[in-house]
Amino acid sequence: MKLHWSPKSPYVRKVMVCLQELGLDDRVERVRSVAAMLRPNPQIMRDNPLSKIPTLVLDDGSALFDSAVICEYLDALAGGGLFPARGEEKWRALRWHAFADGLLDVLILWRNEADRGDGQRSDALIDAFRIKTEAALRQLESEARALESAPFGIGHIGLGCALGYMDFRFAFLQWRERAPQLAAWHARIAARPSFRSTEPVLEG
Amino acid sequence: MKLHWSPKSPYVRKVMVCLQELGLDDRVERVRSVAAMLRPNPQIMRDNPLSKIPTLVLDDGSALFDSAVICEYLDALAGGGLFPARGEEKWRALRWHAFADGLLDVLILWRNEADRGDGQRSDALIDAFRIKTEAALRQLESEARALESAPFGIGHIGLGCALGYMDFRFAFLQWRERAPQLAAWHARIAARPSFRSTEPVLEG
Repeated sequence: MKLHWSPKSPYVRKVMVCLQELGLDDRVERVRSVAAMLRPNPQIMRDNPLSKIPTLVLDDGSALFDSAVICEYLDALAGGGLFPARGEEKWRALRWHAFADGLLDVLILWRNEADRGDGQRSDALIDAFRIKTEAALRQLESEARALESAPFGIGHIGLGCALGYMDFRFAFLQWRERAPQLAAWHARIAARPSFRSTEPVLEG
Repeated sequence: MKLHWSPKSPYVRKVMVCLQELGLDDRVERVRSVAAMLRPNPQIMRDNPLSKIPTLVLDDGSALFDSAVICEYLDALAGGGLFPARGEEKWRALRWHAFADGLLDVLILWRNEADRGDGQRSDALIDAFRIKTEAALRQLESEARALESAPFGIGHIGLGCALGYMDFRFAFLQWRERAPQLAAWHARIAARPSFRSTEPVLEG
């Protein structure tokens, strides 16, 4: 299989963590693909017209997206383990995963907005992103104990990558100050080999 | 159960179509909730800190989101029918569903961008959204026959709502001209009672 990949995308990182946790990392060839909101990438678009990464090209040439679908597909390929099959455990994991993706969506839009030229930037929009991010942190802090006690799975992977992205691009938020229990949980997740080997790195 | 709802959100519409197709519409109380990117809504945020709709509040007070998780939850509650359990059929349906949500994400951002004041609007960004949308239409046109032959499910519901949103907010695109087979498929989907009764309406 072929994966449209980048070392800095948090959505791609979820897939890379799943691959390692499932023992499938040698099944996928990574293709460096740049997806920027302003520049549709024809190479990605051959497989995903929305020009987003990750996109996974299967051996028959068909392509899967988005990251949530790819993670679930890989889990099934490996015989399961990261996506609980049913019951309360399943909805809790899927909600955390969606929570993480939704938080990442806010952060990515925030970053794009902040990168706009002075005249084009909307401070009201940035305020809205900040309010949502802080509310998300408060809610996740209140769920840190539940995260701790639930069996490791896709919800943890999603939130681990979302908080990792906050460290990578939003260090100025210093989120740990307002979410100490979440920070303690995150430190344990971030120590897993699958997380350590996929940590994004700023260019020197 | 309580659903943060609006008559014009295409993501909410997916949930409403699922409820009707599954025979669950009398199980959910709709609460009119306005989610605008610029204005975080405290009432929604009590249940979903990201301030997005749909958000489904279960009888025990816990809340599920996003729309994909809610649709899958409702499907399980009804004993299944819209989410294929396994195999190629499953990944095809989930890919179409994610394709639909991704296309909707592009269209919503496009609309927000177009609504900005003259100085704040990025024409380059709008061009990028248009390129992705047209590529998505070309791809979906090539898949119209596959959509036609697959058993009705969440992929069809997603794409039906995405194309319905294009009719609602992007009529000027006249997408049917470039995607006649997709248009024929859409006409049959749109004739289902679940789609007819959830069609968004412009204010007079």
